[in-house]
Parts: sequence; C-alpha cells; structure tokens
Amino acid sequence: MRLSRSLFSTLRDRPSGAHPPGQAALLRAGMIQELAPATHAFGPLALRVLGRVEGFLRAELASLSPGEVSAPLLLPAGEVHDGISTDPIELRDRRGTALRLDRTASPALLAYLDGQVDSYRQLPTRALSVGRRPRDPGAGARTRIGALESAVLEVLCADLDEGAALETRRALGAAVRATAATCGLGVVGAEDLEGIERFLAPTTAGETVVAVSSDRSYAATRACARADLTPSPADERIPMRRVETPGARSIEQLRRYLPDVPPPRMLKTMLYRTDAGDVVAALVRGDREIDAGKLRRHLDAEEIALADPLTITQVTGAEPGFAGPVGLPEQVRVVADLSVADLTGFACGANETDVHLADVWFERDLPLPEVADIDAIRPGDPAPGGGEIELLAAIDVGAVSPRGPLGVEHVTERGELQRAHISTLSVDLTRFLLALAEQHVSERGLRWPLPVAPYPVEVIQVRGDDPDQADLATALVAELAAIDIDVLWDDRDARAGVKFNDAELVGIPIRVVVGRGAAEGRVEVRWPDDDREGAVVHAAEVAPRISERVSRGS
Amino acid sequence: MRLSRSLFSTLRDRPSGAHPPGQAALLRAGMIQELAPATHAFGPLALRVLGRVEGFLRAELASLSPGEVSAPLLLPAGEVHDGISTDPIELRDRRGTALRLDRTASPALLAYLDGQVDSYRQLPTRALSVGRRPRDPGAGARTRIGALESAVLEVLCADLDEGAALETRRALGAAVRATAATCGLGVVGAEDLEGIERFLAPTTAGETVVAVSSDRSYAATRACARADLTPSPADERIPMRRVETPGARSIEQLRRYLPDVPPPRMLKTMLYRTDAGDVVAALVRGDREIDAGKLRRHLDAEEIALADPLTITQVTGAEPGFAGPVGLPEQVRVVADLSVADLTGFACGANETDVHLADVWFERDLPLPEVADIDAIRPGDPAPGGGEIELLAAIDVGAVSPRGPLGVEHVTERGELQRAHISTLSVDLTRFLLALAEQHVSERGLRWPLPVAPYPVEVIQVRGDDPDQADLATALVAELAAIDIDVLWDDRDARAGVKFNDAELVGIPIRVVVGRGAAEGRVEVRWPDDDREGAVVHAAEVAPRISERVSRGS
Repeated sequence: MRLSRSLFSTLRDRPSGAHPPGQAALLRAGMIQELAPATHAFGPLALRVLGRVEGFLRAELASLSPGEVSAPLLLPAGEVHDGISTDPIELRDRRGTALRLDRTASPALLAYLDGQVDSYRQLPTRALSVGRRPRDPGAGARTRIGALESAVLEVLCADLDEGAALETRRALGAAVRATAATCGLGVVGAEDLEGIERFLAPTTAGETVVAVSSDRSYAATRACARADLTPSPADERIPMRRVETPGARSIEQLRRYLPDVPPPRMLKTMLYRTDAGDVVAALVRGDREIDAGKLRRHLDAEEIALADPLTITQVTGAEPGFAGPVGLPEQVRVVADLSVADLTGFACGANETDVHLADVWFERDLPLPEVADIDAIRPGDPAPGGGEIELLAAIDVGAVSPRGPLGVEHVTERGELQRAHISTLSVDLTRFLLALAEQHVSERGLRWPLPVAPYPVEVIQVRGDDPDQADLATALVAELAAIDIDVLWDDRDARAGVKFNDAELVGIPIRVVVGRGAAEGRVEVRWPDDDREGAVVHAAEVAPRISERVSRGS
Repeated sequence: MRLSRSLFSTLRDRPSGAHPPGQAALLRAGMIQELAPATHAFGPLALRVLGRVEGFLRAELASLSPGEVSAPLLLPAGEVHDGISTDPIELRDRRGTALRLDRTASPALLAYLDGQVDSYRQLPTRALSVGRRPRDPGAGARTRIGALESAVLEVLCADLDEGAALETRRALGAAVRATAATCGLGVVGAEDLEGIERFLAPTTAGETVVAVSSDRSYAATRACARADLTPSPADERIPMRRVETPGARSIEQLRRYLPDVPPPRMLKTMLYRTDAGDVVAALVRGDREIDAGKLRRHLDAEEIALADPLTITQVTGAEPGFAGPVGLPEQVRVVADLSVADLTGFACGANETDVHLADVWFERDLPLPEVADIDAIRPGDPAPGGGEIELLAAIDVGAVSPRGPLGVEHVTERGELQRAHISTLSVDLTRFLLALAEQHVSERGLRWPLPVAPYPVEVIQVRGDDPDQADLATALVAELAAIDIDVLWDDRDARAGVKFNDAELVGIPIRVVVGRGAAEGRVEVRWPDDDREGAVVHAAEVAPRISERVSRGS
C-alpha cells in the first residue's frame, strides 16, 4: 500500500469528545472515522486488522468444518425461529411488509440447518456466517464505537445429544482462546447466567465487569460471580434466645451486644419491594452485601427497590434495623443467599424494636427458606479455587452459548423424530479490534502486535522525491512482497516530521526508515520491542531478518 | 470439500412455487435455500460463486486503487448526505433513536470521503465497500430470490472535474464488462435516464426490458430507448387546408381521406390527465405510439391517464378522434415527441368533429410545441446506428452513475473551495449469480462456466467404502490441491445414482469419476464441452490436463 495513492489521513489533533485511549488512537490514526453520532466507518487499515482476526478465527474453527452461509439480514416478521431470536428491530419495507432485523444470524442459521438436515447421519453439522449486525445500544454505552452495530462472526452447531454439544462448545471456546492468544488479545472466559461462556478482554474502557481470581483460574461475570464463603459453624447447639439490643440497627452495632458471634454468623435481612408490589426479605451473611441485580433476576422482576421505613414497620412490626426471618408474615417471600443455608447458631433481627435473636438454627427454629445466589462479589473476596477476587472492566468480545434441543428435527438411528442440540458461537470482530486497540496503545499512538497489525512493516521513505531513496524503497518493498510480506510504504511528498508522527499514530510494528544512507544502501530498522531508536543496517539484511520476525510473530 | 463432511443437500423434487429455470436449479441443487417468503440463505457452494465474481471484479478495479471501507448499515436518520440516499428504510432502535437503513453504501462512503479529503492533492480517490443491502421489493418482483436484499459491491469515486469523472466512469464500466466476460455472463451496457449506465444480463427471468440493436452496438433501457425515426419531409410547402373526414377517428381511417399523406406525416394527438388535474396533449407520428412512462416522467407526474371522452370534448370542442395541436385552449400543455419536431406538411385533427387539417407546418401554422422523448420503442424498429431493435428481458446486475459535484469539499490548486465530482459503481453480486444461473442452466441442472464454478472439478468416488477408489480419489484430490485446484469430492456413502444426479444438479464443469477401474488406476473424465459420456484415462494424466483447462478457463 503506497500512501501517496491511498485513502489515508490522520487527525492533527485529539478527536473531540470523550474516548477511551485506544478508541481515541484509532480515530486519530484515521483507521476509524465518525460519520455521525455513534456511527463509524472502518477504513482500509482497520479492515486489514479485522480481516486478520477473522482469518485466525476461521483457521481455528476449521477442524469443526463449518459450512459458510450467507444469512439474510432481513427476515419477514415472525416467520423464523423466535426461540433463538434476541430482541430484533422491527421495520416495514416500502410496501408495508413487516420485517425484522435480528441482532444475530442465529435464527437464519437455525432455519438453514432445519432445511438441510433430516437424518442423524448428517449430524453433527455447523453453519458459519459473517456479517454486520445491530447491537444493543445499552450494552455498548461506554464503547461508543461499535455501539450501534458490529461485524460479527457466528457459528451455529447442531449436535446429536448434549454430550456431543458440550464437546462442540469446548472446541468453540478453545478456538476463541487460541485466536485471542495468536492476536495478542488478553481475554478471560467467564461463565455468565444460563451457562453462557463469555470472552472478556480486560481494559478500563470495558462496559462489562468480570470477577477473576489472582491466578485467573476462576472467572465469572459479576452477574454470577461468587466468592468462596466458607462457613464458620457454631460450637454447640444451644436453644434460640432473645437478646435486648437497644439501638443496634447495624451489624457493627449488634457486635457490641453479641461479642462472641462473628459477623459471618449474623444474618443481614433486607426488605425489598418488587414492581409487582410484592415484599421480599433477602438474607445474606452479616459480613456480606446483597447484589440487587442477582436478586432481581432471581425474582424475575422488572425492578426492585429497598422497602421504605413505613413498609418495613408494617411488615415486621418493628422499627427498621430489627428485621429477621423468624415470624415474618406469610405473604413475605424470603430468599436466602447460598451461604446463609450453611449458617448454624446465627443471630438475626427479632422483628421487634431493640431486640435480636441469637443461636438460631434452620429447621429447628424456622424452616430453611428459598435459597439463591444473591451475594455481591467484592474485590479481595476469597476466590473459589484460591486466591483473591479482582474486579476488572472488560470488553465483551464473544460468547459460546448452550441452546439445548431447538429445531433441526431429524430421524434418529432408531427411527424416532428428535431435535438437535444447538450451541452457538458469536465473536464480535469490531469489539475484538476495539479491545486490541485498548490493550495495545501508548501515549504516542497504537502499538499493534505483529500478527494482527494492518501491515507487519512500514517503510518510511523520508523524501518522496529523492531518487536514491525511491529506488531503495522500491527494491525493498518488492523484495518483501516476493516473500509475501505486505508493506505500508510512506512515499508521500510530505515533511519527514509528518511521516514519523503518522507512523507513531498508526503503530506498524516493524519500521524501516529509508533516508540519508539510501545512496550507500543503508537503512534504519526499528523492531517491535525497540523503544525509540532504530539500528542502522545494510538493506540486504533487512528482508531476511523481517521474514524471521514475521514467522516468529513478535 | 468432502461431501461426507459438509453441509450439502439437494432437493429430490422441483422446488414448489413458480421459479425461473436458473432459480429453480439453484434451489434444487441446494445452493440456495428458502427460509421464508422472498428470504433466502446462500449456502457454501453459492458463496463460492459469489466470492469468485467478487474476486474478478476486485481484480478489474485494482487499477483504480480503491480503499476498502466498512460502511455502517444503520445511520442516524437525516444525519448523512441525503443527496445520494435512495429511499432508506426508516426504523427505531430500542431506545427510540430514529435510524435509517440505506439501500446503498453511497451515503456512508460519501461521508467517509468527506472526512478524508481536504485538498485537491488527495484526488482522485475511491472508496469501496461490500455488504448486504435491502433492495426495492418492487424492482425484484419477478426475481423473487434477492428481492428483499442482495450482496452488493459499491465503489464511490471522487474526481477533480467532470472530465476526470467521465474517465473514471469509463474505467468502472470497463471493469464490469471485463468481469462479466471472464465469468461467462452475457451483459449489455444500456444507458438509462440521467446518464446512468446499467448493466443488464439478458434472460427471460429478467425484470427489466432493454432495447438492443441486432449487432448490440446500441443498447438502452426501454425507459430511454429511441428508434431511429428518419423524417419523410413533405415535397412542397402548400398552405394549410381543412379536410372533411367524417368518422375518421384513427390514423387507419384517416388514410382513406388523405391517401397521399404517409402515416409518418400524420400526427397522433392523445389527451392525458395528470394526477395534478392538468390536461396534456401528447403528439407522436401517426405510425408510432406514445410511451406513457416516458411522458409521465417528462411531466414529472406521479400518475397520468388518458383523458375521458367528456374531457376531450370539453377541451377540443370535438368528439374524441379529432384532436390536434392547432387552436387548443391555452391551459393545455402540448408535448411533442422528438420525431414530431421534424415533421413538415403533416396532417392532424382540427379540434372539430369530422374534420382534419393537412399540410400543416410548425412555425407557420402553429408554434413548435415543447419537445421530448415520448415515443414508445417496439421490436423491429430501426435502431440508431443500423439494424433492428430487439426488446430483451434482462436482470439488472449493476450500474455506473454520474452524480455530479456532491460533497467532498476540498481546496483547489488556486486555493478555492469546491466539491468533487462523484461517480458510483454498484454491482449486485446476488443478481449477478442469479443471472449466471439463468444463462447457464439445462434441463438437468446448472452448468457453471469454469471460471465461476463453485469448484472447477468434482471427483465422484462411486463407492464411498471401496478402498481402491478411496485411495485413488485421495491421491487425485491431493495432487490437484498441490497445484491450487480445489475439488468437490463426493465421497458419501450413497448410491451411485444419487451422486450422479446430484452432480448433474450442481453442474461442476469438470467431472472425474473414480469407479470400477480404480484398482488399475483408470478414471473417467468429462470435460465442460462434453455432453454426457466421459473418456477413460489413466489417473496420472488427469491433473496436468485439468490444470491446462483451468488455466484456459473453459
């Protein structure tokens, strides 16, 4: 690519608006251009990065032999597999026909496999599709680029049974991990609700929070992350007793009255009201907090809020601060965190102002309530498997989802009709690129890892009009082309300062400067791990050494 | 591609519904699958054809050095270049933001170049984009596949002036012609309204009508095609006279009263009424008909209809059949066909029942009216440049459009601010494939030209479980792969009849049958120009001969 003949322009200044550093660098390097609010075009250099990521991913998926399908963007409303559709955009064409624009190719791919498969002999089978899809603007609020739509590679897999589907999902996950590793993108695979494995690239620009253990052996999205809450059991089984606790409205205050009971054996009881008007008592350990999001999802409620003092008093018969699970009215639904079920001989509010109960045992003093994961994860919590929990912001770059038996009806070996077990992979190539940029950016510009760089090599011809420089650069570019190494060749008729500055912004990993030494066949080379200075070498050495670095990938 | 491991299934019967032969064959060969009404997925084999067409087109466009841009599908409503937008679909995302889904990438590409270019030094420049776009369902009514959306390759070019833009459009047109020639698609380039050059692939399945001369030197869409209407001038300039013509309401009847006036010198006057309520008198030669579409577009009216008898009588003061341009009320707009302007000493209605005028001359007896192209083209008409006009149905596969100065403001060499001259290319890859299928289909199935075939070679291993056949097929496929020739390898555990039938449906040009002779190293080869029988050859000869045919491209 000769810059003198290419669509190439960088921004002189930082882009306006608040952008995370990687996005600002992409805009400034001219790789991405804002066309309208939250609407971006990806230029030739960015497309090359997307193409490389897609190429590595396809190579990793090759062992699954996916058949590529061109899936339609627009489907007639309601015609195809709503089971796998996610909140499509509804629209009408000029003739008034109701259409839908799905956020995923899955409904179309499922319908495609439905039409292709009728016998167990055809399974397993996988359909792959790449295309632009609208995103949920809510999910991308902080990632403004790509908030409206993304280029997405999707694979829909149909397997004979859940065991085979599990193997397929392992292979899909392995393909994403391997691709990220090749591309130099740090990702953690974190389990989300419903068993979805989400691939999250940690960066402060991320919109998703992931909990990981120090050694990364544990990772889960905040929505389903759990600390390892080892119970501290009571020593002896003594009868439940009533304790006067004037003014003890918090765990801290309660400790003054019950110095022998550790906070993990105190019960925190919080009353919530749902949008449906129900009152729910949520129980966590005294040293923990409730994750209102987890509770809301468990209740399958649109919204929940802490109950107001009046409601608390009406329900418990006590002032706020003295609620507890013993003796609550029957219409109050009680939900305890998983860790609460392990408690023995615990303390809790007595539903009586200035009174608590101590040495309470489930089953003996009250039935074990409904149990769910409602504990809020916190940095520093003990992680399952050891180490401490860290909470990281991350960009969601992909997901492997189990879908269960869903369509693709076929005749089994025994002649019965059954549905295939479906799994899907979705990799958001646009966000993958954004995450790469966030993870590989410096003060001066982008720093692409060699395997995904738009070009592995940039040749800066310092003077566009110098014949010696032009001859040497031409020869070098041809020599590299002959060994399949593409070069970004800055042969523009521009000042050297402009060229070096643009090179810093774009961040091609290997830089060859063809300048004053050109007449003597000398050039300056900067390798990916060099900081600023380049080494002067003879032009004849350049191509073999670059070839070696490109093969090595760093 | 080993069929035993691939997404591949053909239909046992003809697809239901009325389809043109090529589309029926694509559906039957399983290359395209209907997911919902007018909504189709393209499977792996069809995608390979699309990929080949796109590859050839990109190669032809390479000399223009287009920069590839990933253009967004969705733009905020009204934000970007409405000047080049064509009837976008309007929609709202979940948050209620008004968006538009354009039928072309041009608005996004224009906005992109707008952001990239600020100096004349950066021109010419071109942006290329490939993606799915919604089509106008009206235009694709007969081509049901691809009616809703298509894969489209677009190039938007910005030039310094109209002269350079014209050169660019010639290069774009040449690229389409060369691609079609390489792919084996017959196309005619036909000028349409507003100077757009449309590329039309003749096939009975087409939804566009194109007028071509016998030697194809002339081609135009019906909307702007004109016959070569040589005038037959009157011998002498005698005064206009009134002729009693009782009952002569048609040209045929008028000939009885004016046997010396040939019909090309008689004037046919038809009264129309527009949706705006205006009355228009349209004039064509007596031997010709009015093209109501041309007239409507010239009038820029939504709708026009022939005036009813009452209106005719009110306007002309005569019974229908005696209208003429002389002495019409002033509020009647008179539009004459281009050929009418050449008439001398002609006959026309007198606006008086049972009376005509003869020896009428423009300028002498009435002013020359407004002149436009409103003559209807007919098969057999003399074509401009010689030969006869044929009217062919054709599929519209692409267009090169002049857009004039439109955006991409830049500073000229003289320091002035001006807009670039924009031209666009749009090639509908989906319809290109459909047209290929229509032009290359037989009773038995598709017959792909070698350069665009999904695979150049199919190896039919007659018995999936025969070790000799499997060994020979494996060796042959490997030998071909080593010289970059991809093979569709039917190694399925299926009956020979099924395999041969599927091969006929899919229509891979070169077929190698590995059957009984495998143990002796003998195979049967059918070349693209063979009809049914294959020649028995030794396996060692196969790869070199195939290589030669693939290089030759036929």
